[in-house]
This record gives sequence, structure tokens and C-alpha cells, in this order.
Amino acid sequence: MIKKYIYGNPFPTDAVVKDIAKSEDKLPFFETDNNGTFTFGLSEDDIVYGLGEQIRGINKRGWQYVSWNYDNPNHHEDARSLYGSHNFIIISGRQTFGAFFDYAGRMEFDIGYTRRSKMQIKAEKNDLIVYIITGENEKDIVKQFRQLIGKSYIPPLWAFGYGQSRWGYKNEQDIRTVARQYKASGIPLDSIYLDIDYMEHYKDFTVDRERFTDLGKLTADMKAQGIRLVPIIDAGVKIEKGYDIYEEGVQNNYFCKNADGGDFVGAVWPGRVHFPDFLQPRARKWFGKKYSVLTKLGIEGFWNDMNEPAIFYTEDRLADTCAEIENLTSGNMGIDEYFAFTGMVAGLNGNIGDYDKFYHNINGRMINHREVHNLYGMNMTRSAFEALQEICPEKRTLFFSRSSYIGAHRYGGIWQGDNKSWWSHILQSMQQLPALNMAGFLFTGSDTGGFGCDTTEDLVLRWLQYSLFTPLFRNHSAEGTRMQELYCFDNVNAAAEMIKIRYRLIPYLYSEFLKAALNDEMMFRPLAFDFHDDPMAKQVDDQLLLGNELMIAPVYRQNAQGRYVYLPEEMMLIRMKSSNEHITEILPKGHHYVDIALDELVFFIRSKKSVPFGKAAYNTSEIDMNSLDLLGYPDSSYVLYSDNGISPVSDDSLSISELRK
Amino acid sequence: MIKKYIYGNPFPTDAVVKDIAKSEDKLPFFETDNNGTFTFGLSEDDIVYGLGEQIRGINKRGWQYVSWNYDNPNHHEDARSLYGSHNFIIISGRQTFGAFFDYAGRMEFDIGYTRRSKMQIKAEKNDLIVYIITGENEKDIVKQFRQLIGKSYIPPLWAFGYGQSRWGYKNEQDIRTVARQYKASGIPLDSIYLDIDYMEHYKDFTVDRERFTDLGKLTADMKAQGIRLVPIIDAGVKIEKGYDIYEEGVQNNYFCKNADGGDFVGAVWPGRVHFPDFLQPRARKWFGKKYSVLTKLGIEGFWNDMNEPAIFYTEDRLADTCAEIENLTSGNMGIDEYFAFTGMVAGLNGNIGDYDKFYHNINGRMINHREVHNLYGMNMTRSAFEALQEICPEKRTLFFSRSSYIGAHRYGGIWQGDNKSWWSHILQSMQQLPALNMAGFLFTGSDTGGFGCDTTEDLVLRWLQYSLFTPLFRNHSAEGTRMQELYCFDNVNAAAEMIKIRYRLIPYLYSEFLKAALNDEMMFRPLAFDFHDDPMAKQVDDQLLLGNELMIAPVYRQNAQGRYVYLPEEMMLIRMKSSNEHITEILPKGHHYVDIALDELVFFIRSKKSVPFGKAAYNTSEIDMNSLDLLGYPDSSYVLYSDNGISPVSDDSLSISELRK
Repeated sequence: MIKKYIYGNPFPTDAVVKDIAKSEDKLPFFETDNNGTFTFGLSEDDIVYGLGEQIRGINKRGWQYVSWNYDNPNHHEDARSLYGSHNFIIISGRQTFGAFFDYAGRMEFDIGYTRRSKMQIKAEKNDLIVYIITGENEKDIVKQFRQLIGKSYIPPLWAFGYGQSRWGYKNEQDIRTVARQYKASGIPLDSIYLDIDYMEHYKDFTVDRERFTDLGKLTADMKAQGIRLVPIIDAGVKIEKGYDIYEEGVQNNYFCKNADGGDFVGAVWPGRVHFPDFLQPRARKWFGKKYSVLTKLGIEGFWNDMNEPAIFYTEDRLADTCAEIENLTSGNMGIDEYFAFTGMVAGLNGNIGDYDKFYHNINGRMINHREVHNLYGMNMTRSAFEALQEICPEKRTLFFSRSSYIGAHRYGGIWQGDNKSWWSHILQSMQQLPALNMAGFLFTGSDTGGFGCDTTEDLVLRWLQYSLFTPLFRNHSAEGTRMQELYCFDNVNAAAEMIKIRYRLIPYLYSEFLKAALNDEMMFRPLAFDFHDDPMAKQVDDQLLLGNELMIAPVYRQNAQGRYVYLPEEMMLIRMKSSNEHITEILPKGHHYVDIALDELVFFIRSKKSVPFGKAAYNTSEIDMNSLDLLGYPDSSYVLYSDNGISPVSDDSLSISELRK
Repeated sequence: MIKKYIYGNPFPTDAVVKDIAKSEDKLPFFETDNNGTFTFGLSEDDIVYGLGEQIRGINKRGWQYVSWNYDNPNHHEDARSLYGSHNFIIISGRQTFGAFFDYAGRMEFDIGYTRRSKMQIKAEKNDLIVYIITGENEKDIVKQFRQLIGKSYIPPLWAFGYGQSRWGYKNEQDIRTVARQYKASGIPLDSIYLDIDYMEHYKDFTVDRERFTDLGKLTADMKAQGIRLVPIIDAGVKIEKGYDIYEEGVQNNYFCKNADGGDFVGAVWPGRVHFPDFLQPRARKWFGKKYSVLTKLGIEGFWNDMNEPAIFYTEDRLADTCAEIENLTSGNMGIDEYFAFTGMVAGLNGNIGDYDKFYHNINGRMINHREVHNLYGMNMTRSAFEALQEICPEKRTLFFSRSSYIGAHRYGGIWQGDNKSWWSHILQSMQQLPALNMAGFLFTGSDTGGFGCDTTEDLVLRWLQYSLFTPLFRNHSAEGTRMQELYCFDNVNAAAEMIKIRYRLIPYLYSEFLKAALNDEMMFRPLAFDFHDDPMAKQVDDQLLLGNELMIAPVYRQNAQGRYVYLPEEMMLIRMKSSNEHITEILPKGHHYVDIALDELVFFIRSKKSVPFGKAAYNTSEIDMNSLDLLGYPDSSYVLYSDNGISPVSDDSLSISELRK
């Protein structure tokens, strides 16, 4: 059951799609001071799940999190905010219930941080809606919540293929080289990503014609090889006379405004920009239509970036900083002045004070950005999604975004942002997946191999062995770091086999994705969601259930040649060094130490279950959903969801069939 | 056997105390290009141990490390340098041997980073000595190496007590409050640390008389309660007319010089400073004698900081940066200019280019700092140690340092630097211990609870359960972070019990420390060093053997209520929630999942062994080495090393007795 409690005058976030009557009874579970603060006493064994894209473990206890979408490339243990705000939690323990705090501004979640036995949730203003969800168990609560917030976005099938990305491939030749090298190495590939360098001076919906002479031809050439190009789109629009997007935006008041009514100026990649007011339906519509500039060139997928929105600096803060620098550095700069100096410069980026400086036009009323900050990225993706529904209604377009709020899951996926080539970030990605699924974000994944910092071959291999299970499966790295295209390393074959195994697993992954999306379920779940009465299952935070048939337990420590795995029931271990061969072993319920060599994939099939395993494919277009083996227990069956992978999913297009072993 | 190979014209580092004849045969194991590069082919199963204070696991394979002492508060997975340079490694596998690269400048250790199967070690110049050590096994190789580099420093017994520190306790009252609160909470305490705020304007060997009116009286009052004050000493000397240290240094040419012969200027806490030329014996002697300013006030211990040396900025680089900032920020600052701007400011601190700018006077010859950089911190600690031998020869003084080189282990301990309140930093500290012990650094430990960032109560508790085993056992945190004195949290009793257990274990810890120091052994060892033929033992990187009787396996993950433990032999599990009670359980060799509640200490006693366990004590002065129980297996015995805890250790002062259970 879902109950809705309204406080003050909430801004309509569009997170929720179901109209529910307001409850008149007292808010259960929480104490509230009617000042935006909600308090709950935690029992020693209570587990708190959720918060979507956040740091730390599956159990969120013991930290203070802040919902404030933030371009934060440092996903450190002490981070408080990342790119998205997903204010849905489940408390599981003495009392089990879900709570969604639908609020567009800044919120704090102190989950046993200040005091171990107290959870205190605080909205900056007392203008929010709280939904309390009770149900049979965690899965039931999630299902009810997901029905409340609407169906998750489903990308085209090709988006489940492997993608190669890097900031930055500088020109057409770089792209062709990637395609050629993958081909030469015999590694399947479905997409290559275009980061900011394809644009002319980082201007949205332009192409640098010197470095990418004919993007249409390049796109077609690539597509002939089964490779889609996926360009990036940034939130900020360069201020440049004569640049059509800029001119149209200014003329039509599509941009966010200063207090004095002028267009707000921030700075990002191109330097000075205006930010489209994506909260205005007419601005959304305008900006969304621009994607056709690229779809006309054959583009079928996009990633939306910098839409927290990221602001490297604002001019007045920069001017103040420069003046203060002169002041601070004029005498003998000791500790206080030195920290002030370096702190000011480091604090230019994403300075929370800058988000007070601009306004959205909501039905003629100027709303300060700070109050609706967390909705910006969501509405950028919405802009694209809704426009593409009109531009090419016959097919699904790939979309994923960096910034999001609950509701954005209906319009696109998200990637897990600018992680680093750190071993701990394999686990961090994994621990986010169930929380993201709870919030409706099914199409997601991490930058395989790590975005920032230098990677190593063994890290890439271990990362592949994890992320080959995630819907979004992309290798991405940052300028200035070591190249990490799979052909760069010594044991190319080991990496190639992992990608080939992915392709053989796509029928399963895609089918489970469709089930999760269409039935409002989680594709990735903590063990405790399915093994509710098993106290050990509640402890496990480095294994996940994937769909209804698999359990994954990847290696995420350097030089480890194996790991401990807890089986909450008897399972079948599958061991693969090659996509063509596997070894199986039935292991009993309980604790196991499992050897896993660096070039070896290990996963587990649940008792009496099996998963469809496709024939070898170098591209998603070669995957034959009608020719599948079943991998797993004898006498088992599997219900396969499939479709043509292209058209919008409907009852007509969906095929459900039972496979028997 | 140790063989010595000389390349070029090495700078004498004083790392080694034994004179060994130069080998004329070809360097074994490594290929060298006689250009400072040494290459070794790694077999798939080779393990590389060592490198002392470095990041990553016990097995150093898979990263590129750089020996370049660096004030690096970000002990991230991608760090390449920390505060010390300890160029000793053991390769264990197809061939097992040790190698020490005695070189005072910058060195790279690419241990299977660029190519997984290749180790490439590179000195900036081909002026170094390489020692190759072969032996029966890893322990034997370490013992030979330790005999080569001389006996490790032994602190007084009180240094094994618990210490409370914070940057910054601002005044006398803050110190008295800490002492009173510990007393009131019934938590043992032996020391309180004085960070930079006790000084007048961060000037070495001064005391701010406004905030610390009478440090002598404070020291005496504290000592009457069994608490020693331990002040910090920084490397840089403030430039200030009339300040005696500054004046004497200038007059006598005790400071490092510019190329033109003037005193080099860097900036640290007080702003502009000169750096004592600790590589000059006469400057060492001069600076060392200044410690008597504080010993006269009753001080018996010091920590030496900022001695990489840390340089926040140099004036010319700051001037260049400011000019460039003006330039970069004058137009439309886009991505390139923005990154240049923020990068320049962030790059002021510890900029490697600044270390080229100054010189040491070595017997009248000016040696560029860059060539001897890694020796600076070592010689600062040496300066203090040698002076205190003269000032108070009758007793051992506590010393530890941030920066070090091998050889510094003879003069003092080191702490593991400015870590963070991150769960992963419990493990990082633990993984450094064996490598530090290999290099002779026995008196060491991490900032319990974490220095930077905000801590949590559960992190502090879990950290205590690890660090109560380390010789240096200090809670330390940074300005601006959450207070983490143990009385700040809800369950003070749980923390108090952990400290009380520490005090009951001190007889064992101190005895094992003495054995390791006097017999050139490691106090903390990887399991594989003792269980050489056990392939699983080689894999374990989150458990350590402590002395000859214990194994530790702390919990280092938030919300975990237990962990996996591998026993390489049958052991006795000891479980304690209180210092007065324990539960024992014999566990067989093999894998175990062990429940460990948040307020519970678990450790393991090796088969047929036992450890001395003292009576309750609130201070090390109360520890009675003659009244010990034996905890562990029946019919076992333990050889206890003890002394009066104060005088320099000699054959006369040392008592060795066998305890029987």
C-alpha cells in the first residue's frame, strides 16, 4: 500500500505518474517537525537500502548523503553527492517499509552518521511529498514504487552490445582505427562513442568539419560494419554570435535567467555558455528537435552530459577569486591565506552558491534554480526522448544521461559517471546497481576499466568479468590517461573471450532486462531480497542476483586468484576461459572459496534454473534469439522475453516463449 | 648471501651500516642497460613484496611506484609516491631473492604495470648501489637485509600506550579537557600530541605563551597523571628577524642554498621559511640541540613533520602562477585555460620543479637537492636522535617522523601519514606493515579513525580493533573534520574496552617488538612468510602474522558483522567484548566465516602457542611485567623480552624469561 503525505507547497517533479489521494492520517514510522525533517530510530540490525546513485555499500547505514546533483569526479568514500538524486529508501528490519521523498531541492540523509541509532532526513524547505510504501517484502515494496513512478526506459537491442569510448578520439581517423583494431583482434563491437571532440568548439549540434569531414559517411561506413556512433550532447550552449542554437535560445527566452532577466552565464567546456531552461516545456521541445541534426546523419544514440548542470565557474565568482588571489598572495602567504587561495580556486567548480544565481520560467513564474536543481538533468533527457519519439517514432533511440532524478528512468538510462581506474570502483559500481534498479534505472553500467587515472591490464580484465553482466557495457577513459582499448594489452585473447561470452549471454540479459522493465522489477538484487530469512544473505554486499537465474560474484581485488562466495542455496558454478567451453560444478549452500584465474569468468546458476546461451556473435545483429542453448540445471526451463530489438515495445511486438532443457 | 654492485658514482646515503666488498661478477637476476634501468621478467605466479610505505596490496604487482618523498594526503589507489622511499623488494616465486636499490634520488618501480610480465626499475641517474640478497626464504632474506642496514629504533615503553592527537588543540585548556575526559570515561591514555598550534606562529622550538602560558607546568601536571605531551617539529624555519633559530641558521650557513648562494626560500605553515641543511653534520648537530628547549620543559617525545620537505609554494612559482592566472582569466576561459588555471594552482604544492632549485653543502660541494631528495626527512630525525643521545643519554626518547628513507629506522619510527577516515585505509595501513618491517621500520602505525575527512563511530571502533595491535597507537584527526576523541561517541564503553585490551596486550606487543628489533626480524608478516608451501597463504592480503604467536584478521568493511578468515594451520580464536572476559574456540586449518560484532575483538593464537596477557592497566606505568597470564594453548610456553622500558636497551638491561602455562 502507498500513502501520500504532502508538506507545504511542493514543486511538481513529475517523478510520479499515478495520482494518489493525499493521506489525512499521521505520517507513520517517522517523527517530523513539520520543518522538512523526518526522524526514524534505527534498530541495531535494520538495513537501509536505496538512494540510487550514491557511494558506500548496499546497506547505506553509517554515512550522511546529500541529494544534490553534482559533477563529482571523485567518488571517494567521503563523497556526499554524485550526479543523481534518488530519494527512495527501504528500511528493512524490525519494521520494513519504503519511503520516497519527492523533493527537487537539496536533501540530507543522515543514516546513522551523527548517531548510529538515528536516521534523520532533511529537506531544505518543508515543501515536499512523502510516499510511504508498505508491502509483503522488499521486492513487493519496490514493485509498488515502480508502478508509482512509471515504466523504465528500454533501449534498442544494439545498446546491449559492447561499446568503446574515450575522451578523446580527435578525428574520423581515430574512430576508424578503433573499428579496425577491434575487427582485427576479433573482438565483438556494437558502438563507438564520440566525446566532446567531435563538436566544433564544443557547440552542441555542430560537427567539426576539419576533423570529421563527413560524419554522415562515417556513420554509414561504421553502420555497415555493425557499429553505431554515439555522440555526446552537453547541457551548456556556447555564447557565440551567429551560432543558431545560441541565437534562437536568446530570441525565444529558452535560456535560464538572471535575477535581472538577462540570460544567465556560466562556463563549461566552450567557456561561456547559457543553460537551456529544460523545465520549460517549450524550451525542451526546441532543444529536443535539434537532435535531428544528428539523426539525419544516421545517428541512433546519444549520451547527455554535464547536465547537473556542471558549472566550471561563473564570471563574477571568477572575478572575485582573482581579486582575492591578488590580495592573498601580496604578503607572506602563510597557512590561512594559502588554504583560502587554493580552496577558492578548487571551489569554483560546481560552487553551490552559483546555483542560487539563476531562474527557471515555470508558467511565467521565476523559480530559483536552487529549489529545482535536481530536476535539470532529467528534463534534458526528457527533452531528447520526447523529441525523438516524434522524429523517429518507429524505433527506440539509445539515450543515457549523467545527471538524473527519479522519473528520468522513463526517458533514458544513466551511466555511473566519471569513476576512476581503481579496483574499489568495480565494487562501488556493483553496490549501486540494486539501488538504481529500485529507483527505476535499469539501463546502466560503469565506465569499464575506469575513466580517470591510469588503468592496468588486470584491472580491465577483472572489470570486464563484472561489467559484461551490466546492461550498459562500455569501456571509457579520460584524456591524459593510459589507453585502454582492449587491443592495447598483451593478452588480447583473454579480453576478447570475455566480450564473446557477453554476446552469448545477451539473450539472457536482454530478456531479463525486458522482464524487469515490463513487470516493474529489479534486474539486480541484493541476496537478501530473495533469501529473506537467511541472516548471512543480509551480510553479503559483494555479490548480486541477476534476474531470476544468475548470481554474480566478481573478483575486484588486484592479484587475487579467487574469492569467497556465499551461496544462499545450492547453485551451479559455471567457469569459462573461452566463450566456447565451460566447466560446471554443483556447490552446496554455504561458504566457499572459489579459485578464479585472471582470464577466467565464474558465475552461478541458481538451483533448478537455466539461462539461454546464444551462438557466437560479433555483433548484436548476428544474435539469433531462436537458436539458444540452455545453460544450467537439467530438466529446467526458462521463459524468454524477446522482440525485434528496434521498435517500441508493446504487447504486439513482445514475444514470450518457454525454453526447456 | 649479500652481493653489492656499484653503478656510477653513488651518493652515500648511510642506509647501510656494514661494509661489503663490491662484487665484480655480473649482476644476477636483472638485465641492466647501465643507464639506471634494471629489468626482470616476472613469472605469472611471482609475488613482489616490499617498497615499504606505498599504496596497494602486500603483493606489489600491477602498478608503477615512484620513490620520491612527497607530502601526499591522498593515499589513493592511483598514488605513486607517499612520504617515504624504501627501495627494498623481495621477489618470491620461480626465483626468490631480495634487492635493495640504494639511491637518494627519484626511482621508478614498474612492477608489471606497463607489461604484466615485466618489472622495470629505473633510477634517474646511473649512480647507485644495488644489493642482491639470496637466502633460504623470505624471512632469511629480510634478516640478512636488516643486519645490513642496522638495528631498528626502540622507543620507550610508554610509547606503546594509547595516544590522543588532533590538529588542532588550540590551547592548554584543550589539552586538559582531553586528559580529563579520558579519565572521566575510564579510558587508558599515555600521551597527548601537540600539533602545530602550540607554537608561536609555527616557529620551531617556540611556544605560544598566550595559549600555552606555562608548557613546563602543563607537561608536569600531565605527567603526574601518567600522560606525556608529544609536540610536533616541522622542517621549515620561519624567516623572521630576531627569531634565534632563523638568525643562527643564516649566520652559520645552516640552511639550504640557492644556486647563487643565498638561502633558499620555500613556504609552509608560517609562510616563508628556510630549510635546514640536514645533510650537513654541523647543521644536524645545531638543529638537534634545539630539541633541548622542549626537553627542559619535561618533554620526552617528538614527531617530526613536513620533512619531505613539504613546500606549499615557492615565491617565483607563485609569481609566475599569478601572472599566468591574469592571462588565462582575461578572455573567455574555456576548457584548456580552465584546466591550466586550476592545474597550476593545485600544482604549487610539492611541485617537483621546486626541488631542483636548492642545494646542500656536502663537504663544501654544492649538491642539487633533487639528487638527494629522499634523504632529507631521514636526516632530520637523525639530527634529533643523535642530539638527544647527548642531551639525555639515560633514557630513550620517542621519535617518529613522516618522511623517511631506509636508515631512518635506526633513529626513529614513522607514522603512516595523513590518511583519511576511509574504511579502505584500515586495510591500506595493514598492507603496509610487513613492507615497513622489511625495511626496518618497526615502530609505526596509522592515524586511528582517519586523519582527513569525517569519521563515524563504527569506523573508529573497527579501526581500534586493528590498530590496538600496532606499536604506534594514536588517534589523530585534522582541523575541520568531525571530532573523534573516543569520548565523543555513543558507545564509549565499547571503545574503552578495546583500549583496555590493548593495555593487557602490551607485554606481548612490547616483547615481540623487542625481539623483532634485537633479532632483526619482522613483527608483522604476510602469512606466506611462515607458511611457505601453502598456496592459499600466498593469496591472503588482509590478515597478518603478529610476532610468533598471533594472527590478526580485522574487519575493515562498514556494516559487516563478520569476515572470512583463512587459517594456514589450526588456531585458537579469541573473542573479547571486554578486557576481562574472553571466549576461545579451536578452529581447524582452512577457510572460515567468523562473526565479529561491532563491539567485539577477535584474533587468533597460533597452534600450541600462547601470549602473555597483563593485568588491567590505565597507563603503561601500571603494567606489571611480572604478573602475566598466558592466553592460548595449554602446555605452551612463551619467551618474554622485557626491560625497564626507559634506558637504552643493552644486554644488561634486557631480561629474557620463559613463561609456562
